[in-house]
Amino acid sequence: MFAPAELTQDRFLDGRLLVAQPRHGYRAAMDPVLLAAACPARPGQEVLELGCGAGVASLCLGWRVPGARLTGLELQPAYADLARRNAAANGIALTVVEGDLARMPADLRARSFDHVIANPPYFGAGTGTAAADAGREKAQREETALADWVRAGYRRLHPGGWLTMIQNADRLPELLTALSQGGGSVMVLPIAPRVDRAAGRVIVQARKGGRGAFRLLAPFILHASPVHAADAEDLTNIAQDILRRGKDLRLDR
Amino acid sequence: MFAPAELTQDRFLDGRLLVAQPRHGYRAAMDPVLLAAACPARPGQEVLELGCGAGVASLCLGWRVPGARLTGLELQPAYADLARRNAAANGIALTVVEGDLARMPADLRARSFDHVIANPPYFGAGTGTAAADAGREKAQREETALADWVRAGYRRLHPGGWLTMIQNADRLPELLTALSQGGGSVMVLPIAPRVDRAAGRVIVQARKGGRGAFRLLAPFILHASPVHAADAEDLTNIAQDILRRGKDLRLDR
Repeated sequence: MFAPAELTQDRFLDGRLLVAQPRHGYRAAMDPVLLAAACPARPGQEVLELGCGAGVASLCLGWRVPGARLTGLELQPAYADLARRNAAANGIALTVVEGDLARMPADLRARSFDHVIANPPYFGAGTGTAAADAGREKAQREETALADWVRAGYRRLHPGGWLTMIQNADRLPELLTALSQGGGSVMVLPIAPRVDRAAGRVIVQARKGGRGAFRLLAPFILHASPVHAADAEDLTNIAQDILRRGKDLRLDR
Repeated sequence: MFAPAELTQDRFLDGRLLVAQPRHGYRAAMDPVLLAAACPARPGQEVLELGCGAGVASLCLGWRVPGARLTGLELQPAYADLARRNAAANGIALTVVEGDLARMPADLRARSFDHVIANPPYFGAGTGTAAADAGREKAQREETALADWVRAGYRRLHPGGWLTMIQNADRLPELLTALSQGGGSVMVLPIAPRVDRAAGRVIVQARKGGRGAFRLLAPFILHASPVHAADAEDLTNIAQDILRRGKDLRLDR
């Protein structure tokens, strides 16, 4: 468990959500908010988040889609506990299961979902430098291959259910190779910091058993000004709608 | 061979090139021009085009980079003959070899190149409806899997040489899976008809033996107006530079 002094209270969706996160651990920023916005869940549908951490993505989704039935799977007990407390503090129902997606807990193996969402670690095993904090290290660096996240996601979906993931853009080839095994109707939304810049992240969405053609969508642009402006508020209108106002991010526009 | 009455004389690069193409066969439009623009060949370098058809891509490249040493491989004898005649008519040196990339002719197997370019058929074997014209059918529909084009391309490159291809955007997952085997430093340039539209084509570029991170670039936009304007001239400035003025299309901007 995290002691209170180890935590900060962070505002998401312009303060509509207050989420405790470890001061020195993995700290969610925009990515789980974008992930939640891209999940096309409707009220009453079952949603599973793989690797939910402190719960930011699931809670943003719960805020936008009241009545969505949310379950999170989290490997690290301290994060699972934090996610439960964050859900309670925001009045959002979120069931958190402790466990490893590579050895899916029996109670989740017995269930299937309309949607699976995930924000897997961005750095492959054995790349880059280790984070000083063990929790952040675990949250940022994979011990489970990206293909295993995709496989676990597909397995937990109803036929026709949607898998939505956000990931560093440089892992797209790996992701697409994995997504083509067991699903289809894949869409890729590039997330670019500015117009005319390469994508920093990608949101991918695939349908279990889908047969539709692959689509590479127009990029989602985060910042309006052509260069980095440290002090200026320069989010694009569409980014403000999603990050501040909790609107959805429809991939099939 | 095509009889003169079967051919039309088509202008490329605003009339800088005049290329004979079969009236009812496969007819090049923008794609080979974009492909040629994206190939970073320098004077003196060796370039191989796989499946050169009537030669449009190689001739555009030859126009932009005088001194590039151009070789085309073409399966269909009538197209190979046409490519040779088109090269002569435009005063550009292009060696055309007749043969199948899946059974690389011995004289090409003995050589390696600085660049390989290709515009493979857009429709996978067994998909869609057959074209009425046999030559167009062969040019548009693959008998050779996309992965074989990539493999043949990598094989003909020097270490560090660049493979550049243009393809329908819906084949990107297949292409990326193939490109990751034997190469790296892959870049994808989405080609979109207009801003905010999904990509119609992709240009992919990979380096033989490359170790650089994958990059998903900002899209290249063809048309400036937000909706289709049948009569209006609405190419973007950058598209005009490439399609009319024969400028290069640098992926690593």
